[in-house]
Amino acid sequence: MATAEIPSRHKALVYDEPGKISTKIEEIETPKPGVGEVLVRLTHSGVCHSDMGVMTNSWSWLPAPTQKGQVGGHEGVGEVVAFGPGTESTVLKKGQRVGIKWMAYACTQCPACLAGLDASCSSGKISGYYFPGTFQQYAVAPAHYVTPIPDGLPSDVAAPMLCGGVTVYAALKKSGAQPGDWVVIPGAGGGLGHMALQIGSRGMGFRMIGIDAGEKEKLAKECGAEVFFDVTKYGKDADASKKLAEDVKQATGGLGAAAVVVCTASNVAYGQALSFLKFHGTLVCVGVPEGEPEVIKNADPATMLVSSLRIVGSAVGNRKDAIETLDMAARGVVTTRFTTEKMDKLNDVFERMDKGKLQGRVVLDLSD
Amino acid sequence: MATAEIPSRHKALVYDEPGKISTKIEEIETPKPGVGEVLVRLTHSGVCHSDMGVMTNSWSWLPAPTQKGQVGGHEGVGEVVAFGPGTESTVLKKGQRVGIKWMAYACTQCPACLAGLDASCSSGKISGYYFPGTFQQYAVAPAHYVTPIPDGLPSDVAAPMLCGGVTVYAALKKSGAQPGDWVVIPGAGGGLGHMALQIGSRGMGFRMIGIDAGEKEKLAKECGAEVFFDVTKYGKDADASKKLAEDVKQATGGLGAAAVVVCTASNVAYGQALSFLKFHGTLVCVGVPEGEPEVIKNADPATMLVSSLRIVGSAVGNRKDAIETLDMAARGVVTTRFTTEKMDKLNDVFERMDKGKLQGRVVLDLSD
Amino acid sequence: MATAEIPSRHKALVYDEPGKISTKIEEIETPKPGVGEVLVRLTHSGVCHSDMGVMTNSWSWLPAPTQKGQVGGHEGVGEVVAFGPGTESTVLKKGQRVGIKWMAYACTQCPACLAGLDASCSSGKISGYYFPGTFQQYAVAPAHYVTPIPDGLPSDVAAPMLCGGVTVYAALKKSGAQPGDWVVIPGAGGGLGHMALQIGSRGMGFRMIGIDAGEKEKLAKECGAEVFFDVTKYGKDADASKKLAEDVKQATGGLGAAAVVVCTASNVAYGQALSFLKFHGTLVCVGVPEGEPEVIKNADPATMLVSSLRIVGSAVGNRKDAIETLDMAARGVVTTRFTTEKMDKLNDVFERMDKGKLQGRVVLDLSD
Amino acid sequence: MATAEIPSRHKALVYDEPGKISTKIEEIETPKPGVGEVLVRLTHSGVCHSDMGVMTNSWSWLPAPTQKGQVGGHEGVGEVVAFGPGTESTVLKKGQRVGIKWMAYACTQCPACLAGLDASCSSGKISGYYFPGTFQQYAVAPAHYVTPIPDGLPSDVAAPMLCGGVTVYAALKKSGAQPGDWVVIPGAGGGLGHMALQIGSRGMGFRMIGIDAGEKEKLAKECGAEVFFDVTKYGKDADASKKLAEDVKQATGGLGAAAVVVCTASNVAYGQALSFLKFHGTLVCVGVPEGEPEVIKNADPATMLVSSLRIVGSAVGNRKDAIETLDMAARGVVTTRFTTEKMDKLNDVFERMDKGKLQGRVVLDLSD
Repeated sequence: MATAEIPSRHKALVYDEPGKISTKIEEIETPKPGVGEVLVRLTHSGVCHSDMGVMTNSWSWLPAPTQKGQVGGHEGVGEVVAFGPGTESTVLKKGQRVGIKWMAYACTQCPACLAGLDASCSSGKISGYYFPGTFQQYAVAPAHYVTPIPDGLPSDVAAPMLCGGVTVYAALKKSGAQPGDWVVIPGAGGGLGHMALQIGSRGMGFRMIGIDAGEKEKLAKECGAEVFFDVTKYGKDADASKKLAEDVKQATGGLGAAAVVVCTASNVAYGQALSFLKFHGTLVCVGVPEGEPEVIKNADPATMLVSSLRIVGSAVGNRKDAIETLDMAARGVVTTRFTTEKMDKLNDVFERMDKGKLQGRVVLDLSD
Repeated sequence: MATAEIPSRHKALVYDEPGKISTKIEEIETPKPGVGEVLVRLTHSGVCHSDMGVMTNSWSWLPAPTQKGQVGGHEGVGEVVAFGPGTESTVLKKGQRVGIKWMAYACTQCPACLAGLDASCSSGKISGYYFPGTFQQYAVAPAHYVTPIPDGLPSDVAAPMLCGGVTVYAALKKSGAQPGDWVVIPGAGGGLGHMALQIGSRGMGFRMIGIDAGEKEKLAKECGAEVFFDVTKYGKDADASKKLAEDVKQATGGLGAAAVVVCTASNVAYGQALSFLKFHGTLVCVGVPEGEPEVIKNADPATMLVSSLRIVGSAVGNRKDAIETLDMAARGVVTTRFTTEKMDKLNDVFERMDKGKLQGRVVLDLSD
Repeated sequence: MATAEIPSRHKALVYDEPGKISTKIEEIETPKPGVGEVLVRLTHSGVCHSDMGVMTNSWSWLPAPTQKGQVGGHEGVGEVVAFGPGTESTVLKKGQRVGIKWMAYACTQCPACLAGLDASCSSGKISGYYFPGTFQQYAVAPAHYVTPIPDGLPSDVAAPMLCGGVTVYAALKKSGAQPGDWVVIPGAGGGLGHMALQIGSRGMGFRMIGIDAGEKEKLAKECGAEVFFDVTKYGKDADASKKLAEDVKQATGGLGAAAVVVCTASNVAYGQALSFLKFHGTLVCVGVPEGEPEVIKNADPATMLVSSLRIVGSAVGNRKDAIETLDMAARGVVTTRFTTEKMDKLNDVFERMDKGKLQGRVVLDLSD
Repeated sequence: MATAEIPSRHKALVYDEPGKISTKIEEIETPKPGVGEVLVRLTHSGVCHSDMGVMTNSWSWLPAPTQKGQVGGHEGVGEVVAFGPGTESTVLKKGQRVGIKWMAYACTQCPACLAGLDASCSSGKISGYYFPGTFQQYAVAPAHYVTPIPDGLPSDVAAPMLCGGVTVYAALKKSGAQPGDWVVIPGAGGGLGHMALQIGSRGMGFRMIGIDAGEKEKLAKECGAEVFFDVTKYGKDADASKKLAEDVKQATGGLGAAAVVVCTASNVAYGQALSFLKFHGTLVCVGVPEGEPEVIKNADPATMLVSSLRIVGSAVGNRKDAIETLDMAARGVVTTRFTTEKMDKLNDVFERMDKGKLQGRVVLDLSD
């Protein structure tokens, strides 16, 4: 594609009433890539539950309310069509497919970046939140921070890997689990959970236990869960949780799991998780419940100390995690169930997500 | 000393009214070492705050109330005077000084032991709690589990290292801090805290910050605290904690500490600790507050995740940790402030401990 | 089986002319288990290439020549039939199946044992070398050091895991490779190599490359090699090695492999290995060439430094490694190709091994 | 300093006869910083033994001969005086002091950079070798790759830290040694060695053993060596090496050291190093002998395997290592002995270096 073909304006989906589920297609000016940036012609963007949190201002931990006119989205795939100044030495080539992630930019030189914690970059930018996202046909992105898409991996398959896939992969790494260890995934059938099951079982040699509503059992087992517990059969009171914990321990041979990676935004799930663990086991926080933060039940010093337990928070992943996740996707280790929708269906997608009616992920087709 | 000199009976301090501060000297039968055991003529035993918790049944996490007649104590030093059957291949020699620790026995072959987590041994025994402790003149101990005392390290100096020293060393290891990192010690002037400051600063290359009441500042700085905060100047409300957190962050150059090792049994201290941390920082739980467990404030998924924080429970240490701690003591890296008391003063010692009037540690002289 | 059924004498295979391939069946006295020991009625023993090295005195690194009358073997499986004094607290049960490994005994308390390096135990004993081995019907073994055989894993299948399986698993762990990394196995079709391919690919998430003679390609690929190079097509000169290194690098995407685990006793293979590695790659030494030691080609400071390479020696594994290996075998992650032979065929087996004519492993059936 | 004050030409020291010790002061054009670059007015540059290797073409591992007119040097300190395009978001400020290192540039996004191995960057540039070095008054440098100099650390003190200090710190990290472990430094009194002793003992909690000629004993002990061996008393034959190894083992309590970091460019030193190690010990390659590469003596599979030894190559360090090294220097953990010379003395400095007559390091004062 010649640079001349880049239009002066393109279609973008903006949040026109932040706080509500409401997006609108607008024609906006196509930007020119600045120093160190490339312009990407986006063809696909995943729709992630985090977009909902940003659009509706339902996450208390975000520092400021979303602004009207924000272009959302943070799982974008497209091809590089133009280069800004200072990108002469980039390894990217014209026409190469790249991905844009939750972290749109990290500086690579602050203490957090040097420690591999891109999400804590002191000058980081988030796609679709105070930085134009991927629900649009063209986006600028830093040449050093986009993720190359491996040949042979279709763009629509790649899109959901860029946030959901990377997030669960990084969380599984931080779990401290070793090959052969048992890892429990509450929210096993959800967007994050079903990827965690695949990456854990096929990619990292873990033995996976899924927990979710019974209707997700088939999906969970196809994704690699050796054992599945239907959470709806237990209820939510203390006795029910105790029974579930006993069942988890029995399934793992008596001691409990090496790790629990909570892939659902449920305070009840967090409240149960510590009781699934064996000595030195790790609870990894991935799902963020909406509303006011609730402390993790049983996270008191005595409980933590008696069994040398660990709790770890894991936010997305870094560039290396993203490359490795896409490599796993290209090798077929992990795929995601998704349906493709056109841009004008985004409101409908969010409505269905809000009602818990989405089956798998949705990927937007950003072509006209 | 010839085996013939071992008396048939010896003096022991027993808890005669568990639930209260009350110990009594009794003459009890001197046991013979069983298979794999040695008999140790104890000369010194440290008195640890944990003994108080066991004696008074004030720790809710212990599985059962302490029994009347229990011999307490778990920081004992003495010399090997007799060998049981099956100890032919032990490296121990007659007359060699050894230490007995909180874990009196760990099997070395259960999953927890194989993972280096002696405190979670499935058949572990605790000195001074359902197993005869070190407040007595003779004790049997497993040949494979006692810790050799390095030549040149006096027995009274060694005693408090066997629980307090090992505990803070293992906790500092689990903190994930690296040389040059900032580590905060709430309870800096206490029995655990003042050892943590020394081991961290002189032994491991960390930069230490102490937090305690102002009267402990001098001790804390002598022990290696570069910075000290007088917690009494801040109060205990949310604003005060926020101000303290700001001061900690400023002292560390703006980002916060790499780790906080809570060496005090205070829920308030735990509630402040997460706010002292930089990205990927670790809160290590060591002190166990008495009474009903209280959840660590702010230990909610969003807080953990936004800065990739970690919470880790650390219970005593394993045999390797004990050997390394005593090596540090022998090299002068860590010493403890202690006074020596005779056996008949133990009630008095516990009374003063209860009132917070102890200056440093107390070591019992177990000679007649 | 009642204790009464233990015979006073049993059949054992001894090396009657160490230095040569020569074993002889003898009736020897059945020992009684000593303190801390159990008596195991052995039903199967793997025959390992190391037995050959011990019998023929062809390994220069062993400290002393093998003695006449030595009972060989170090991959034994059988059931516990009697308990010595001091084993009251063992988790073993009468009739339980257990395995005896290369390390017959490690003390669990010397510095090497505390560091998890059983093979460097200062009082370690080796099965079949200055300690009675597993080519016999009854053997005593330390209760704390035998490895439980998981239910459902046949004893003959388990036997070769106890040395070969553990050895390659521990080596793969020490390789530093992470899930998704490329690992090269020279000697891919041999006894060690074909297990390494399976454990690496199915158990640990690595991508495996096999190198061996072309006739092993089918086996290697069945065992998990994604790529196979027929070493006979390259020759052994410097140019040939260079071409092979180029092919390995191309197969890994251009950079080279994260690790090479040399599973063959060939100095030529060692000489090529460093050139297969990418930056920070690791060469793991497993196979030990016979005869005078030869230095690894290219292991000079400049080569090591320019690409931050690593060379690591790995000797068998520890108790935890053994448990994990057998767990993988029980789950079907790794199996071994073996044929079963009666005791009186052992000389024949060694002859065929010496001529390179063995297909897979041999397991001795130790019944009469 | 106003940008207007930047001269159009400045003084630089070039290698006018690569292959020989010969440098010449020339006036060259002062460059303008390109995209992402800053211009640094250099005030000091350390003179490192590596400069000699580059100038005289005596290192066989460098890919090509040095070109005539090359500006040498790679330990430069100065202040930022101008910013190129695309540096708007840099944290650097005008007038801020920064350091330029051996790696003049690393891309931060290739596989090696993402793994923290800057020295293996696929598009890395080396100061003073095919990229203008720091023996000049003005140099351009990438804004993301220069290292900020901490306030309070004089520029001449900082200069030798940027290569020598970083190199030994990164090597000590890669040694795997833990606090309390013994680490041996052959070449203890040299430019690298005396920094390694200080960083190891005061910064990382290691116990250090120095090996060098007897005249360096005083310096080595002042720098933190607990034990010193005068290599000249042993000679260079096999028996002498054996005796030295015995003495090292005895000094460490019998087992040997956890690590040896070879800080001298001597094949003899490498040949002895493996024999100093205990089980699982690590030989770190830092010094690079001149001339044809010589394989490390005893680096054969059997030796590596019997004691589970490791050999690791370590090349300089990454940006995080550099920041941490300068932080240690600012805290007084490490200082270097140096003399200051004017630019016109560089030939003389190299002559003395070549004859082994330099006492400590030399720092060039780059002012007119």
